[in-house]
Amino acid sequence: MSDEPYGIREGEIAVTLPDKFDASLYFVGRIRTPWQRRQDCPKNGRESDTVCTIEVDARWSQALTGVASCSHLVVLYWMDQARRDLVIQSPRHYNEPRGSFALRSPVRPNPIAMSVVRLLGIEGNKLSVTGLDCLDGTALLDIKPYFASTDAAPEAVVGWHRERKS
Amino acid sequence: MSDEPYGIREGEIAVTLPDKFDASLYFVGRIRTPWQRRQDCPKNGRESDTVCTIEVDARWSQALTGVASCSHLVVLYWMDQARRDLVIQSPRHYNEPRGSFALRSPVRPNPIAMSVVRLLGIEGNKLSVTGLDCLDGTALLDIKPYFASTDAAPEAVVGWHRERKS
Repeated sequence: MSDEPYGIREGEIAVTLPDKFDASLYFVGRIRTPWQRRQDCPKNGRESDTVCTIEVDARWSQALTGVASCSHLVVLYWMDQARRDLVIQSPRHYNEPRGSFALRSPVRPNPIAMSVVRLLGIEGNKLSVTGLDCLDGTALLDIKPYFASTDAAPEAVVGWHRERKS
Repeated sequence: MSDEPYGIREGEIAVTLPDKFDASLYFVGRIRTPWQRRQDCPKNGRESDTVCTIEVDARWSQALTGVASCSHLVVLYWMDQARRDLVIQSPRHYNEPRGSFALRSPVRPNPIAMSVVRLLGIEGNKLSVTGLDCLDGTALLDIKPYFASTDAAPEAVVGWHRERKS
C-alpha cells in the first residue's frame, strides 16, 4: 500500500513467482542514454528525439552485418530494476489498476522491453538511434530488422488508453 | 559446411558463447498452432490468416485484465530449438550470408521472437489471434499492448531485403 517506487500501491496484486526459471539470456551490449534516474526518462521513446547509442559487445559485432541498410530496428532490452510478480498494477500516471499484459510498464514476469527505433548510423559496433526511453547502461538483448509488412499496424487501437480519464 | 537444419552452412560464422548467462526467464504460457514441424510453419505470420491460441498459465491470468480492449498485441516467445552462437548466417531462402541482427531468423544470441498479432477474442486465459508463425507448443514470454503511436513505422525499409536477388 505504500507509494514507494518499488513497493506495491493500492489495488495492485502480486503472485508467487515460480520456484525456478525456464530459460536464460546473454547480455549482448549496453545502451547509452542521457538518463541516469528513472524519473528523468521520457515516458516513451517518441516523446524525444534524443540520439542514444547502442554498443554491441565485440563478441557479437559481426552480427551487425547488413543492419546499416535498415531504416528502423526492433530493440529488446532488459529492465533489471523491475519487480516481476505483479499481475495487476497502477502505474503512477494512470488512475486505474490494469493487468501487466495490458501495459508497457517494465513490471512484468519477464522484464523485456521492446522499442522501435530509427537508425541514424553505425560506426563499428556502435549504433546511433532515436526512439529509446531507457536508463543509461541498460543491458541489450537483441536487435532485429523492422519489417513494415509484418510489424506496422497503424490502425491498431488500445481501447483502455484511448478512453482513459487520465 | 553441412546443410542439416541445425548445422552450419557455407559462409556462416559461429562465435564462442559466454561462459555464463546474465538473466533468466519464466515461461508464462504456451502457443497453440497447427504447425508440428519447422517446415510446416509459414515464413512469417502475415502469410497466413490461421487462428492460433495463446494459453496463459493460471498464475498469470489476471495480468490479462484490460487486454481485451487492444486490437493488436506484441507477443514475445522463445525459440528453444535455435542455436545461439551464429553471428553470420545463411537462411535457406536467401542467397547471401548476413548478420544475425539483420535477420528475423530464430538463430540469434537470445532466441526471443517478436510478432505483432491481431486479437480476435479472449476467453478466460486463452487468446485467439492471427499473425503467428511458430511451432505448436512454443513457450510464451510476454504479451504487450501494441501502440500505433510508438510501434508503427509503415515507412520502414529493410534495404538488403528490398534489393535481394532471391
